Amino acid sequence: MSWYLPEKVEIKEVGPRDGFQMEKAFIPTKEKIRIINALSETGVSAIQVTSVVHPKAVPQLIDAEEVMANIERKEGVSYSVLVPNICGAERAIPMKADEWELMLSVSESHSLANANRSVDDSLKIMEEVVHLANAHNVSVRGGMATALGCPFEGRIPFERIHYVAEAYYQMGVRAFSVADTVGVADPKLVYETISQLKALFPDADINLHLHNTRGMALANVIAGLQAGVTSFDASVGGLGGCPYAPNATGNVATEDIVHMLERMGVQTGINLRKLLAVSRDVEKLVDHPLESAVSRAGTADELHQAPTRQMKIGE
Amino acid sequence: MSWYLPEKVEIKEVGPRDGFQMEKAFIPTKEKIRIINALSETGVSAIQVTSVVHPKAVPQLIDAEEVMANIERKEGVSYSVLVPNICGAERAIPMKADEWELMLSVSESHSLANANRSVDDSLKIMEEVVHLANAHNVSVRGGMATALGCPFEGRIPFERIHYVAEAYYQMGVRAFSVADTVGVADPKLVYETISQLKALFPDADINLHLHNTRGMALANVIAGLQAGVTSFDASVGGLGGCPYAPNATGNVATEDIVHMLERMGVQTGINLRKLLAVSRDVEKLVDHPLESAVSRAGTADELHQAPTRQMKIGE
Repeated sequence: MSWYLPEKVEIKEVGPRDGFQMEKAFIPTKEKIRIINALSETGVSAIQVTSVVHPKAVPQLIDAEEVMANIERKEGVSYSVLVPNICGAERAIPMKADEWELMLSVSESHSLANANRSVDDSLKIMEEVVHLANAHNVSVRGGMATALGCPFEGRIPFERIHYVAEAYYQMGVRAFSVADTVGVADPKLVYETISQLKALFPDADINLHLHNTRGMALANVIAGLQAGVTSFDASVGGLGGCPYAPNATGNVATEDIVHMLERMGVQTGINLRKLLAVSRDVEKLVDHPLESAVSRAGTADELHQAPTRQMKIGE
Repeated sequence: MSWYLPEKVEIKEVGPRDGFQMEKAFIPTKEKIRIINALSETGVSAIQVTSVVHPKAVPQLIDAEEVMANIERKEGVSYSVLVPNICGAERAIPMKADEWELMLSVSESHSLANANRSVDDSLKIMEEVVHLANAHNVSVRGGMATALGCPFEGRIPFERIHYVAEAYYQMGVRAFSVADTVGVADPKLVYETISQLKALFPDADINLHLHNTRGMALANVIAGLQAGVTSFDASVGGLGGCPYAPNATGNVATEDIVHMLERMGVQTGINLRKLLAVSRDVEKLVDHPLESAVSRAGTADELHQAPTRQMKIGE
């Protein structure tokens, strides 16, 4: 009966960034702000608001400045932006985010394809970004895209993850985000990767960024919890996705992870009822069905009325 | 790094019964036979072929006799039928199934609503069914519907599961199937329920029947594996469902469970490529999209070509 689960975890809502950037139709700025404000009221402890990526690369988030300037910041909620380079960092300074989420790919081929530079070149850039963050008193988290699998290279040797984590650590970064960018990680890989990272960097705060592309996201959450992770990214409605699997599900849905954790007595601080209301609102906004099991099926504690007239089966 | 996983597990394909019975359109008998024969060639170790329930209750399986008489039985594959009552058992005798899967609901209200009799009355009937099975040398497995949650009562106290398991055990039944009939179980509940059952019935073979209604099926597989379960029901394409959540996903998809297990090095004996071919065939047959993440997204080991012309993001 000794099945380890933590008492509470932190959920970071990444829908406004990782979700909205994958929507074909541009989400109007005022709608983005409205949804982010509604998410702030659910009890979530952190929201990844936007990304300071070049507007040509991600036109959906061209309004990063306007969004960051106009959301209502609720006390106790950490508002972060994704920072992929120095130009982005300079844009991010006046936004006064609580956290910058640094982003690079652990796999060489994905780094070249996505950012047009090697992993080592990305690390040099991240070092400068960390200096800027320190100069402006912003926390940083070292993101590791494709750490749990690359669409071009497949499984990534742990040595490569260790290499990037060590480089981040040498820059003074003490918070990592280990990403299953294309949804290929299995629970054993998650457990082993996190366990090894925690053994090597016992003072680091490790977050898991999971996609449900092959249905394994909640199983990977369990593996992560058992390896000691207490911070998970999730996207309202399961928004987001992967360009290599266009029909597939995206980020693990916030509703689904919160529902599972709360059922097990692991506290998230999130009011699921409020979150499901935001999710219904998001569904209208994006105008396509959401990839969240709980928003489709309802919560497990919704009881039904037993039929009064019984149907006789068999005999 | 001590994360327990078994070397191999048994997957029982239940699509032909639990899946086909939920399809609105009747699947023609010869198509059922063709799919079952194709499933037999995937390496699966057991198939639940049909149910000997009253045709008025489940008209989709009215052809149980014809299907059982005409499938090609492959050596090494166990072919079972679901037997809910004595009338069904009598129908099942000439079918010469390898196993009868007894079925009753652990929750009183579900038992009354679904079978129009109390749990105790069902147990008395099952005792007679077991006598018939013994007389005809057929193995039996004691099914426990709603053991992991009831649509009318919610969570079922473990004492009720214990009560039914003990009654089965007293009849000589040494194989159980613990069902999450409406897809409400969470991993902690699965782990604790199975651990307690295994402690009380150390010589029993325990199977888990999981639905993915709230996205937790693969997480529950992990919990089950860690509690020592090595037999899982699964349905090709995720066919099946639950009348109380009509838009929701159904049984855990065979493709998804096999994909996850094989990625972790847990052997299922199933050739995933062959299974995915059957799944595509089933999708054409049922004429609606399947609820299998892997059939939508492809397997995690399918690598993509890195783009030669690199798109510059950021900077």
